Amino acid sequence: MKQIDVCLTPDLLHLHAVENTIVVVADVFRATSCMVTAFAYGVKTIIPVATIDECQMWQERGYLAAAERNARRVDGFELDNSPFTYMDEQIRDANVAMTTTNGTLAITKSRSAVKVLVGSFLNLEAIVRYLKTERYDVMVLCAGWKGRVNLEDTLFAGALVDRLKDSYAMAEDSAIMAWRLYEQGKDNLAGYLSNSSHIKRLQRLGIQKDITYCLQHDLYDVVPVLRGNALVAMEGL
Amino acid sequence: MKQIDVCLTPDLLHLHAVENTIVVVADVFRATSCMVTAFAYGVKTIIPVATIDECQMWQERGYLAAAERNARRVDGFELDNSPFTYMDEQIRDANVAMTTTNGTLAITKSRSAVKVLVGSFLNLEAIVRYLKTERYDVMVLCAGWKGRVNLEDTLFAGALVDRLKDSYAMAEDSAIMAWRLYEQGKDNLAGYLSNSSHIKRLQRLGIQKDITYCLQHDLYDVVPVLRGNALVAMEGL
Repeated sequence: MKQIDVCLTPDLLHLHAVENTIVVVADVFRATSCMVTAFAYGVKTIIPVATIDECQMWQERGYLAAAERNARRVDGFELDNSPFTYMDEQIRDANVAMTTTNGTLAITKSRSAVKVLVGSFLNLEAIVRYLKTERYDVMVLCAGWKGRVNLEDTLFAGALVDRLKDSYAMAEDSAIMAWRLYEQGKDNLAGYLSNSSHIKRLQRLGIQKDITYCLQHDLYDVVPVLRGNALVAMEGL
Repeated sequence: MKQIDVCLTPDLLHLHAVENTIVVVADVFRATSCMVTAFAYGVKTIIPVATIDECQMWQERGYLAAAERNARRVDGFELDNSPFTYMDEQIRDANVAMTTTNGTLAITKSRSAVKVLVGSFLNLEAIVRYLKTERYDVMVLCAGWKGRVNLEDTLFAGALVDRLKDSYAMAEDSAIMAWRLYEQGKDNLAGYLSNSSHIKRLQRLGIQKDITYCLQHDLYDVVPVLRGNALVAMEGL
């Protein structure tokens, strides 16, 4: 039986061997939800980069650039970390460079995996359907917050475990924990998350509508996958 | 308001500043449950050591020695990692040296804290009562399994959060997660844990009775605390 594992934060990635595994990176508030939205709106490629300098370098080469630090847009870049920014005609066929506090780093740290996919509640079922066609084990890498675990990415991991649990064994307690938390919270995720630290951080910034949007399940039939240094939409789903 | 934080594994300890914090170390299956039992049965000191060699050195100096690796007793030592071993007249006023796979390492890693306490379900209420007399923030350090998170230590952390939640704020999502899991499982912890990885490991070794014992709440009114390199029973509780 294939296995599903959950790495609760990139700071625990050293404990997980990803070489024979498909990694699904989740930073649902909001980096990976933005990426999925961008592909749904026709973006051509997204290059995840670690630093603001790199992002600027791609911007100088004609890329649209998105930079976020501490949940805020960095000055001088076109795009920020709100998914609504990506619902725009300028996105169609565009090449984007993106750096965020947690999400893009999680992607670049996973490069040695068989494949790196971008997951969010928005494309959960698309991810599930794709994974079932593959023979590899799966690991969800929760982006967390500056190395710490967070509730929203753990809930996404739990949602994926929930949908795969008939065909995948849970590898370790982190998968069980994520699944149990999702089971407990799934009927009202927004309420369940209401006292979490990042929700409070986002609410202070007045972006409740982003939160509501990012918690919607199965809006888009897209699976972003890392090819070389760029994310592209998986074809032939 | 004081804060309660939860560090889900020693491999995330670098993210937490413990200098102004009381750390409660939990390795409920079974190291910290053994320690609490030993103090309830009158042990004088327990020196937690990282290696089997160190343990042997203390044994040569006349200490009773306990060494466990991968949930099994190491040959040549009197005591192992079953709490029933410590319910014995030889324990009264004895000095013990102990090394275990996860628990003793978690204790030695926390030395820079204001105080390091040893927690388990067996002495949960004694810990709660003591903490309420102190003005410091609290962090539960879950020993985990070789760096990974585990469900049983997370549940202990959640139990402590649950009992302190009226007088302590939850510092981060890890505290919320632990508390939510405990809320979900508390009415039948044994059943809730039945598919966890360490329970399966212990059941293969035929020590179901240890599991049942370690899940009992509030059996003993003892709080082991680290003084120098040795654990002693807190006085004047």
